[in-house]
Amino acid sequence: MPQIDFFYFFGSCYAYLSVMRIEKLAEEAGVEVRWRPFSVRDLMTEKGYFLRTQPTKMDYIFRDVERRARLHGIPFEKPPIWPTDPDQLANRAGIAAFIQGWGREYTKTSFRAWFDGMPLGAEESLNEILTSLGKEPQSIIDLANSPEIRERYNQETDAARQLGIFGSPTFAVGQEIFWGDDRLEEALAWAKGQHPALLR
Amino acid sequence: MPQIDFFYFFGSCYAYLSVMRIEKLAEEAGVEVRWRPFSVRDLMTEKGYFLRTQPTKMDYIFRDVERRARLHGIPFEKPPIWPTDPDQLANRAGIAAFIQGWGREYTKTSFRAWFDGMPLGAEESLNEILTSLGKEPQSIIDLANSPEIRERYNQETDAARQLGIFGSPTFAVGQEIFWGDDRLEEALAWAKGQHPALLR
Repeated sequence: MPQIDFFYFFGSCYAYLSVMRIEKLAEEAGVEVRWRPFSVRDLMTEKGYFLRTQPTKMDYIFRDVERRARLHGIPFEKPPIWPTDPDQLANRAGIAAFIQGWGREYTKTSFRAWFDGMPLGAEESLNEILTSLGKEPQSIIDLANSPEIRERYNQETDAARQLGIFGSPTFAVGQEIFWGDDRLEEALAWAKGQHPALLR
Repeated sequence: MPQIDFFYFFGSCYAYLSVMRIEKLAEEAGVEVRWRPFSVRDLMTEKGYFLRTQPTKMDYIFRDVERRARLHGIPFEKPPIWPTDPDQLANRAGIAAFIQGWGREYTKTSFRAWFDGMPLGAEESLNEILTSLGKEPQSIIDLANSPEIRERYNQETDAARQLGIFGSPTFAVGQEIFWGDDRLEEALAWAKGQHPALLR
């Protein structure tokens, strides 16, 4: 079965659109998706590029995400709290959740909560999100703060770095990368060998 | 007739895709297009954002433009010379060409030449491009270097700045802006009042 890697960051506005879209599209395409939280923040910091110093661009991004959400029939009430997850705890909890097999539900619940007004990574948010998934919050938070999970998160970030990834979300088919939710359909076509650039 | 403003920079890779696509799509949509060269370079410099210090991202952009060109059936042989047009002369010549009524042909010829290996704004390139359009190169270059055309170019850049534009190409429908060739279809739908975000 064809496969794509879905690299995303808890705290990336455009990743919200992909989180809400990818399962249905991938199923229709017959493509398997590997969900891979990574630290786009670390990669952007390395490159000296900070969206938080670009308020004009951020205003545009919130508006664009809103329009794209409407286009795809995805809930959007108001721009989410941003930046969020200062310690990247929500991201590391994601790593822990995937290891335990409930990562997709955790991801979808977290992004919905974020666009519903919650800050990602805050204790109250994690308590509510994890409890709603039937998990004991403190044990997951402890795990997310363990050296093993930190190391695994760094490894995922390094995998993204090696692929030349610089933004979230990014889809990878082998070494071929596609940046942005608006490239999801292209990435799926690529995975199936049906992208026009492959058929010349 | 609905109208959109097409803000673009001679030297923006993604603008090539829009230059090659916009006439047919706008005609099909019944939307009038106002072509407006502006200095995205000045706006990015003001904001302290330089793509030339982001080689990983530029590698991606060239690859993405290639894939998108294939997707749309647009010629793409190899990545263009970039950055190009150091003095923004090709851009100011564009301003002059639009005032004289042959701006679209100049734009299309210039972008095709750029993706065919020519640097934009170089004397040899301008000689070849302008001559092929039946113009006398030196008189156009002199005009492009005149205070009046410089001022007009700055005014167009300021119009973009006032709209919150930060990248090229950007499409504007009144105050609503759409950044990137991949938003062209959305901008046309917006101009016609048919974008899903307008129909809620």
